[in-house]
Amino acid sequence: MKALNHPRVAAESVSETRLWQRLMELAACGGMANGGVNRQALSPEDTAARRLVVTWGEAIGLNAFTDEIGNLYLRREGTDPAAAPVVTGSHLDSQPMGGKFDGAYGVMAGLEALHAMHEAGVETKRPVEVVAWTNEEGSRFQPGTMGSAIFAGQMDLAEVLAVRDRAGLTVAEALDAVLAATPEVKARPSGFPIAAYIEAHIEQGPLLEAAGKPIGVVRGVQGMRWFTIDVKGEAAHAGTTPLRHRKDALKAAIAMVRALEEAMYDETDTVRFTVGRFDVEPGSPNTVPARVLFTIDLRHPETAVLDRLSACIRPLCQANANDCPVTVQQTAESAPTVFDPAVVDVVDRWRRDLAFAGMEMVSGAGHDAIYMAGICPTGMIFVPCESGISHNETESATPADLAAGTKVLTAALVDFANR
Amino acid sequence: MKALNHPRVAAESVSETRLWQRLMELAACGGMANGGVNRQALSPEDTAARRLVVTWGEAIGLNAFTDEIGNLYLRREGTDPAAAPVVTGSHLDSQPMGGKFDGAYGVMAGLEALHAMHEAGVETKRPVEVVAWTNEEGSRFQPGTMGSAIFAGQMDLAEVLAVRDRAGLTVAEALDAVLAATPEVKARPSGFPIAAYIEAHIEQGPLLEAAGKPIGVVRGVQGMRWFTIDVKGEAAHAGTTPLRHRKDALKAAIAMVRALEEAMYDETDTVRFTVGRFDVEPGSPNTVPARVLFTIDLRHPETAVLDRLSACIRPLCQANANDCPVTVQQTAESAPTVFDPAVVDVVDRWRRDLAFAGMEMVSGAGHDAIYMAGICPTGMIFVPCESGISHNETESATPADLAAGTKVLTAALVDFANR
Repeated sequence: MKALNHPRVAAESVSETRLWQRLMELAACGGMANGGVNRQALSPEDTAARRLVVTWGEAIGLNAFTDEIGNLYLRREGTDPAAAPVVTGSHLDSQPMGGKFDGAYGVMAGLEALHAMHEAGVETKRPVEVVAWTNEEGSRFQPGTMGSAIFAGQMDLAEVLAVRDRAGLTVAEALDAVLAATPEVKARPSGFPIAAYIEAHIEQGPLLEAAGKPIGVVRGVQGMRWFTIDVKGEAAHAGTTPLRHRKDALKAAIAMVRALEEAMYDETDTVRFTVGRFDVEPGSPNTVPARVLFTIDLRHPETAVLDRLSACIRPLCQANANDCPVTVQQTAESAPTVFDPAVVDVVDRWRRDLAFAGMEMVSGAGHDAIYMAGICPTGMIFVPCESGISHNETESATPADLAAGTKVLTAALVDFANR
Repeated sequence: MKALNHPRVAAESVSETRLWQRLMELAACGGMANGGVNRQALSPEDTAARRLVVTWGEAIGLNAFTDEIGNLYLRREGTDPAAAPVVTGSHLDSQPMGGKFDGAYGVMAGLEALHAMHEAGVETKRPVEVVAWTNEEGSRFQPGTMGSAIFAGQMDLAEVLAVRDRAGLTVAEALDAVLAATPEVKARPSGFPIAAYIEAHIEQGPLLEAAGKPIGVVRGVQGMRWFTIDVKGEAAHAGTTPLRHRKDALKAAIAMVRALEEAMYDETDTVRFTVGRFDVEPGSPNTVPARVLFTIDLRHPETAVLDRLSACIRPLCQANANDCPVTVQQTAESAPTVFDPAVVDVVDRWRRDLAFAGMEMVSGAGHDAIYMAGICPTGMIFVPCESGISHNETESATPADLAAGTKVLTAALVDFANR
């Protein structure tokens, strides 16, 4: 029965229709009038989504497990039950005004992969599991990616359980309610060995759509650094104060941003340099601005480039301060993640074998896969989303692209599960 | 008794001490803990200040009058009571967190001039009057300069009387309370002929202080135009959106401001170009800005220059829009005011005669004198204020500078009053 173990057999059993219908059904948990989703972590809507996923899994014989932070697993046994499983998944929680696909797609693609394997009668040596990581978005409880971080030993469980939402409810309290509502899900500790982790996700950017390719083979996640620049000027009367007597914080801040834009210019358009917040005080039309506070969001896949670009921020701000005292502070940092070349290669091989157009790319956004990359061979598969829009009720993707990503995922999972 | 009519005799009777003490006493009406003044138009504090001024005038035989908008006049008779009076003054109302000198100085300098003439026994052909115009600041009731505008026939009395403050009280109601509290002040219509109007004021800018000169001979008031520029971009994920796919409203707005700064550059530092409000939406560090709304405050003494500079705003914004739709709207305009050369000359002649250092200048801020310039020969005298600061509790000026301005004012008033 060698053919039945072949990854392509499983991939060809993926049902575009079933995948799409389940995504739409799942979107009703927290569904909003405009077509978006508000399904925040460990909420009643999240609980409803979890129940739905468990039910779908039960129908094809999958066992459901959960761990100390509420990550939800559906397990398909392998011929060697003691072997470390191959794991896929993403998250079920959404932004407060989120879409139907961010996170949900990765969980539904994983479930569809297991369903396809089930229907095709494909057996694997290793177990294959689908996981829904708890609280990836971090909208209700901060920070996000709690579930994968706890699994990877990168956050402290007691601290995370004590985090409160705006209403004062702790993660521990919210988690108790979820567990009480899903009594059929068995407890199991997190942190077990994993043979490989592959996460499917919408791109959340415009590149695949622009290239007209359904599959993004993700090589890693770019690094990110945040800076806050505080420029102090002096308020003055716009009518009576000659320009040479002014300390205009806005004029200085604008000169800084222009100099930074030039320094950050990158022919290959890989550097992501964004000034997103730019607050001007007092903000009165006839008063020379006394203060500007602006932020820099800087991203690139390579640490060396981030180091080089970061190093020029302070000198460029000072060189353009024009007598306005300026402070530059780094407020956040996330190192670049490089996925395991073996996983990247397997994903790309099955993409080609299944004849889907695709391209290698680096993720611009953060994902649970970042934490997984620290403990096991990890990779991601991206599919296009309309106009690159996500974290938005209008988030959209096509059934065909979603199915394409799921087919590549299915083949790659079966491939790894037989190693 | 020719000598007694000589302007210098009156000027030499000006008392620096009395002027300063009265300014300090006046500052107690609405005085605040930090040394500032909150004496908004037609408030109980304004009423207290008016009562004080009337009392000081009565002590030297001045008659008090008021008109339909509550302008307060103290009149010193001339030898020809039928002759049109020479008028000086300013306003008693302050900003909510204002200083001791803005407006108050012009009224107190006028009163001191009449006091000096009284003490010196100087007679004049024409009557000389001190006026305190109602509601110059416009803090409580909008717009400002109501008193001088009504006097000059440039605002509609019924409309102005119906203006309400935030508590819902009308100008008419507030004015009734003031009049009831000052029953000794006689009613008299506004709009009567005036031989000349000279207003003393703190500079509200840094030029006299920087030049080390106590007297500013004011040639006019610069014109002003306000513009609002609305730049529309598209919100996008800072991590996943390459720069070439962005419509970054902030980047476009910054390019516009830089281009405008270059176009507005003026070697002589006469052009006043200020971007005071600059609002960025959504203002999140990891979202490409979707919209920027910024203001331009443009001032210059010459209409031709204002026309030329205004004309380049729209093309420069459009040339730097970088695919972001931009709208440019002019929201306010105030034409330049040129004071009567005869008044400017007389002020400068007496400045030189009294041996005060000084310079000709153009007012950067608006004043009641703008409306008076439309109906009679008008001029202004500026004195330095510390660091050019006004509309601020820390507003400050020296007794010597204030007295110098008052001496020049006194001589100029006597000069005109004998013509």
